[in-house]
Amino acid sequence: MAPAEESTKFEAYPMKSGDGPNSYAKNSTYQRGIVDIAKEILHKEIAERLDIEIFLSSNTFHIADLGCSVGPSTFFAVQNILEAVELKSQSQGLNSQISEFQVFFNDHTPNDFNMLFKSLPQNRRYYAAGVPGSFYGRLFPKASIHFFHASFCLHWLSRAPKEVSDKNSSAWNKGRIHYLNSREEVVEAYEAQHGEDMECFLHARAQEIVCGGLMLLIVPGLPHGASHSHTEAKGSHEVVGSCLMDMARKGIVS
Amino acid sequence: MAPAEESTKFEAYPMKSGDGPNSYAKNSTYQRGIVDIAKEILHKEIAERLDIEIFLSSNTFHIADLGCSVGPSTFFAVQNILEAVELKSQSQGLNSQISEFQVFFNDHTPNDFNMLFKSLPQNRRYYAAGVPGSFYGRLFPKASIHFFHASFCLHWLSRAPKEVSDKNSSAWNKGRIHYLNSREEVVEAYEAQHGEDMECFLHARAQEIVCGGLMLLIVPGLPHGASHSHTEAKGSHEVVGSCLMDMARKGIVS
Repeated sequence: MAPAEESTKFEAYPMKSGDGPNSYAKNSTYQRGIVDIAKEILHKEIAERLDIEIFLSSNTFHIADLGCSVGPSTFFAVQNILEAVELKSQSQGLNSQISEFQVFFNDHTPNDFNMLFKSLPQNRRYYAAGVPGSFYGRLFPKASIHFFHASFCLHWLSRAPKEVSDKNSSAWNKGRIHYLNSREEVVEAYEAQHGEDMECFLHARAQEIVCGGLMLLIVPGLPHGASHSHTEAKGSHEVVGSCLMDMARKGIVS
Repeated sequence: MAPAEESTKFEAYPMKSGDGPNSYAKNSTYQRGIVDIAKEILHKEIAERLDIEIFLSSNTFHIADLGCSVGPSTFFAVQNILEAVELKSQSQGLNSQISEFQVFFNDHTPNDFNMLFKSLPQNRRYYAAGVPGSFYGRLFPKASIHFFHASFCLHWLSRAPKEVSDKNSSAWNKGRIHYLNSREEVVEAYEAQHGEDMECFLHARAQEIVCGGLMLLIVPGLPHGASHSHTEAKGSHEVVGSCLMDMARKGIVS
């Protein structure tokens, strides 16, 4: 399938653009915190698992941050990866092998890339590029990325499951935005959509990653055996869902 | 020098953003015409000069369009390059060698990349990326681009020569935006700036281009021996310059 066809079949609702008081850039300390928490694991895994053959076969190390939004969390994540790769390279006595880094910042096409580019760190030590499109499709040429990073974004499905908005379906969700406190059929519809999406995601990355490369995927989850309805995010999902339903009734959103 | 340091020392005045009636996207038929005129030369040069070793050493062909603005001209240029490379590959019996294309669209950081990404052709057969920064500095890792394209943009200097805005200099240009009908010292100041800029441009590209790759640079020029003041663009430069000086006097621009 051609690159463009793969990346245009998904729904795209990017984070709030710009750098105003309601923007993602000004309201993503939680996401930044996740990047900070993951730093230790990131360093450990790169030190233990990154194939040193990579350093011998390429002068440039390619990093892709999927679902990067507009920053600033993505810049901290990329910096952590870069430092960990340099440490690994040095620990192998290969200081001179990796001379340059190229970083691909990816998000949906309507993401505010203008804001992202404007806020790129002045002192960065990498070549930056923006890549528009859904990470549930192909984004990069074959075997071209050494390290994929996706933090707190894979819980965004490619689309709402069709059944949940079908009044004639047993999985109809009565206009709600989530499966919390819904019947089992609704939960199963979301599960099926997530399964389908993850298959697309992994299929695309399998083609794009360099042999010996790594992926770090940070995905919110539930402890084994916990009920779907006992997530910590339950309260906020219900409030946001209720607001959206009110706004839809008033015709403010559709 | 680090990538970011190189790309932030230049002045950046991108083309008019968006797709409104005054936008570059709606007012660039002249630039599109240049791309059309260059198509024949492009095909001929790629057929004759592109090193077929490139096809044997990489599965992906990397194209960069420098000074791409927001489209649509850049998309036609890229399509022309892609078709010419495919023809060359086929003519060498190497149909299966180049399987994928990756295209880097470059312009100043404040360029409207959001608009560019939104208007990417739906049926494109390449992976697209945007690269923010001045083409007078480094933009890409070493030996990473097979074909550079820069159409009708290298006449934009990295900055106005310092002397022309210095009242104490013999090259002071009295607030005008161009060297037309100016004294020889002004012309020399512009020439020196262009020379310095081109050295930076070629130095950067020399590091970034793959061995055996090609560059197509389309630059407006004058017939040998013609006076600087007899360019066809003289009229429009004088009108625009006069308007800008009026606007500066009124404090609308600075």
